[in-house]
Amino acid sequence: MTIKAVVFDAYGTLYDIQSVAAITEETFPGYGDIITQIWRIKQLEYTWLRSLMRRYEDFSVITRDSLAYTLRALGLSYDAAAFDRIMDKYLHLDLYPDAATSLASLKGMKLAILSNGSSEMLNALVKNTGLERVLDATISVDRKRIFKPAPEAYSLIEEVLGVPMHEVLFVSSNPWDACGAKSFGLNVAWIERVTPQAMAEACVRSNVVAPLTMFRALRTQMDELGVAPDHRIHALSELSSLIARYP
Amino acid sequence: MTIKAVVFDAYGTLYDIQSVAAITEETFPGYGDIITQIWRIKQLEYTWLRSLMRRYEDFSVITRDSLAYTLRALGLSYDAAAFDRIMDKYLHLDLYPDAATSLASLKGMKLAILSNGSSEMLNALVKNTGLERVLDATISVDRKRIFKPAPEAYSLIEEVLGVPMHEVLFVSSNPWDACGAKSFGLNVAWIERVTPQAMAEACVRSNVVAPLTMFRALRTQMDELGVAPDHRIHALSELSSLIARYP
Repeated sequence: MTIKAVVFDAYGTLYDIQSVAAITEETFPGYGDIITQIWRIKQLEYTWLRSLMRRYEDFSVITRDSLAYTLRALGLSYDAAAFDRIMDKYLHLDLYPDAATSLASLKGMKLAILSNGSSEMLNALVKNTGLERVLDATISVDRKRIFKPAPEAYSLIEEVLGVPMHEVLFVSSNPWDACGAKSFGLNVAWIERVTPQAMAEACVRSNVVAPLTMFRALRTQMDELGVAPDHRIHALSELSSLIARYP
Repeated sequence: MTIKAVVFDAYGTLYDIQSVAAITEETFPGYGDIITQIWRIKQLEYTWLRSLMRRYEDFSVITRDSLAYTLRALGLSYDAAAFDRIMDKYLHLDLYPDAATSLASLKGMKLAILSNGSSEMLNALVKNTGLERVLDATISVDRKRIFKPAPEAYSLIEEVLGVPMHEVLFVSSNPWDACGAKSFGLNVAWIERVTPQAMAEACVRSNVVAPLTMFRALRTQMDELGVAPDHRIHALSELSSLIARYP
């Protein structure tokens, strides 16, 4: 058995979702961090809730709706231009610093993204950040009208790439996504971006926390979902040696 | 058309989930608030994630797993006795002060709970808090092996009570639950426990927030899920006059 395709989650894995914080802070001074964190938490909640309610809307709608929720919950008023300026950042998210070189190092592999993002969002993002040159496919869950971690979403990898799932390595920094992919049956590498030590130190006996700390406590530690990814790595740059060692 | 049955969500609607904060603070001084909030946020996340992953486990397992996640994420060590002491509070949650009298005032209606809780958890909670005398049924989603807001969960109301759904008023303070019930087709009253004004004031330009504030920003304001409950009330005590005015 060997790995023939490496498939990446996009938001939080190749692309740094925290990179929206500059524009949220510029637009709403003093609120940048809390907007950024609530927006992301609600964005994912809405993917899960709408999937369960059988009221699927694509990720661009959900991203707008979760931003609208966030600004309303915080009591912030805004005009359409300010809203659109923030939304536009989702098409120009920063790549993690090691993303481009790590992908380039995986020669001979099929490389793809499997993301909750809509095709339109993903294609724009991939193009704007220069990844279109190295990716063989950018796969949106939109074709199944259900979001990760539903099995249907992960089934798209074999359908689109034509690579059987035991020859695929799926890579995500989102714990719930790593668990979902493993539950479906893929080989999974989880990128642990915040170590347990760093997390614990940030939270020591604090009755007040930065919203980013709360976000990290919620969404960066491995989840308790009855399934565990195969590999725990700390950076995308570890992938090429991980694959070389593959059984 | 008239209302013949009133069906309540349990956790957060009849029962104050914040009432676990005393035992979490006593067990882990200085951490009571952050444990309470992360635990609840993760508990619901796990219901949605496991439903989508088709890895259903009942709510007692999910409640334990989400507490284990929370303590691990915060770097807290504990023994089984401390863990069980916190868990036990879930069988003895405080009723909201107006819950018992409000239920008693709804004479002539069928009254029930529809909850994510397992039958065992719910039966113990209802018995321990004296609600068994006023409720006609305590319905757990466990029979469908999927959590709210999946339509299957709400379909249990008609199956168990035998009351057609246009004669049911569903009551929840959880915005996502109110939306899920409305999406299914029930008449829905949402209890707004934190007004937008109170929410906005708590969040003004804060780079640090109390975990309870963050929780409220995430889970107390009406969601943007493309559906809206029929009624917005502020306390359970408003129900009897709401039902009297029903068309």
